[in-house]
Amino acid sequence: MNDCSSVPESWPSIDRSGSAPLWRQILSDIEFEIRSGLIGAGQKLPSELELTRRYGVNRHTVRMALLKLADKGLVVSRQGVGVFVTNEHAEYRVPPRSNSTELEQAMDDARTGELIASYRRPAPACLADLLQIDEGSELLVLETLRQNGPRLLAYGYHYFEAARFAGLDAAFVRLRSLSGALAERGCRILRRRATWIDARMPRKVEANALSIDLDEPVIVLSYVDENVDGQPVIYGNSVLRGGSVRVRVEAA
Amino acid sequence: MNDCSSVPESWPSIDRSGSAPLWRQILSDIEFEIRSGLIGAGQKLPSELELTRRYGVNRHTVRMALLKLADKGLVVSRQGVGVFVTNEHAEYRVPPRSNSTELEQAMDDARTGELIASYRRPAPACLADLLQIDEGSELLVLETLRQNGPRLLAYGYHYFEAARFAGLDAAFVRLRSLSGALAERGCRILRRRATWIDARMPRKVEANALSIDLDEPVIVLSYVDENVDGQPVIYGNSVLRGGSVRVRVEAA
Repeated sequence: MNDCSSVPESWPSIDRSGSAPLWRQILSDIEFEIRSGLIGAGQKLPSELELTRRYGVNRHTVRMALLKLADKGLVVSRQGVGVFVTNEHAEYRVPPRSNSTELEQAMDDARTGELIASYRRPAPACLADLLQIDEGSELLVLETLRQNGPRLLAYGYHYFEAARFAGLDAAFVRLRSLSGALAERGCRILRRRATWIDARMPRKVEANALSIDLDEPVIVLSYVDENVDGQPVIYGNSVLRGGSVRVRVEAA
Repeated sequence: MNDCSSVPESWPSIDRSGSAPLWRQILSDIEFEIRSGLIGAGQKLPSELELTRRYGVNRHTVRMALLKLADKGLVVSRQGVGVFVTNEHAEYRVPPRSNSTELEQAMDDARTGELIASYRRPAPACLADLLQIDEGSELLVLETLRQNGPRLLAYGYHYFEAARFAGLDAAFVRLRSLSGALAERGCRILRRRATWIDARMPRKVEANALSIDLDEPVIVLSYVDENVDGQPVIYGNSVLRGGSVRVRVEAA
């Protein structure tokens, strides 16, 4: 049995008050079904006609939602056959004990990093605390775009103690890898102390770099990496397109 | 030194092409600074005048962004003094070895669960696989709203094998706790097998229940919980308002 598109009794009606376009609400509903695993990879979506009935809207509205789903890479349309769910998200693991996460390693190993900007700024209290440096001491900030394959693309903010890592930006430009640039100065990341995960809307620079619209949400992984001596080295934020990556936290 | 509002050389100009309202872009930028820890809890934002200069916009636009930040609970305005960053997000841990996560436990312990909907549907391939049951066999789905304190509020989807857990919805309504309802039938969750994390826009029912706008992103934690015998019991999705909770993944 392969019918994943049965409509539960509680199927929510859509909001016609005009607070959000109808096609966007349909998009959210179908996206929910795909991302939850209710409609699996390779499965066929209900037909346009079925969707117009389910939501009580016209074909144009359903088509708009389907086009947007295709734009997001969630479905693909096969002429005369129907619309099928793709399986294009990459899965990355955050194992409990590891040198780093698979995700960062994959991007560093690809050596495709681009430096978008580097600048200095005084350390605000919260970052000084995470990096165990004095508040107001100078930070070196690298903004990067790193990639591994078509699905893994991250806009990164990397904060270092400037006095300790002067010139790291130039090394990154040369080596196109952050762990490479750190290794060159004898600094090896031993482990990730903690990762925090959040969702928000993208900034303009992030949306441009990740090729998404300003109204598509991003996942933000924030982390602190420490070296062999247990000293914090990097505070970082990796900004990823929502849905492109599923972060898997493994049980030990 | 407490100046967290220094503008780096690379400060991105905003997009005046009309693709997104200016106030929303300013909102995203300031939200980014707060969520990254660049402006810490209790710190003052730059004044309205400074913000109008930074972004080259009028006061009305800046005020709109500040109002939205206050709506999201990220800042609070003190009359005649300025706008300050609050610290209202809760932090929940996903420890590598645990019975469950703090987050689920906190909500179950509060015994405030409301059943929004319960229904049956055939198991699609992907969920059947996660729950180790036959594809197409009947699932019992509970949609719930659970809460612990003002900041922790989750819209949940919980999928069970219907044959094994018939009547679980009624038990949940009575006990207002999912682990309570499971315990009543001798089922104790031992551990979380895996957690996946994603970001997306909310569905209408989710936005209503979480009191957010349809254009605010949500964090979705998907997980499989298993019992003492290593048998999968629940596949679930917890939908949380972005920024309200930071999920911390701990290193072992």
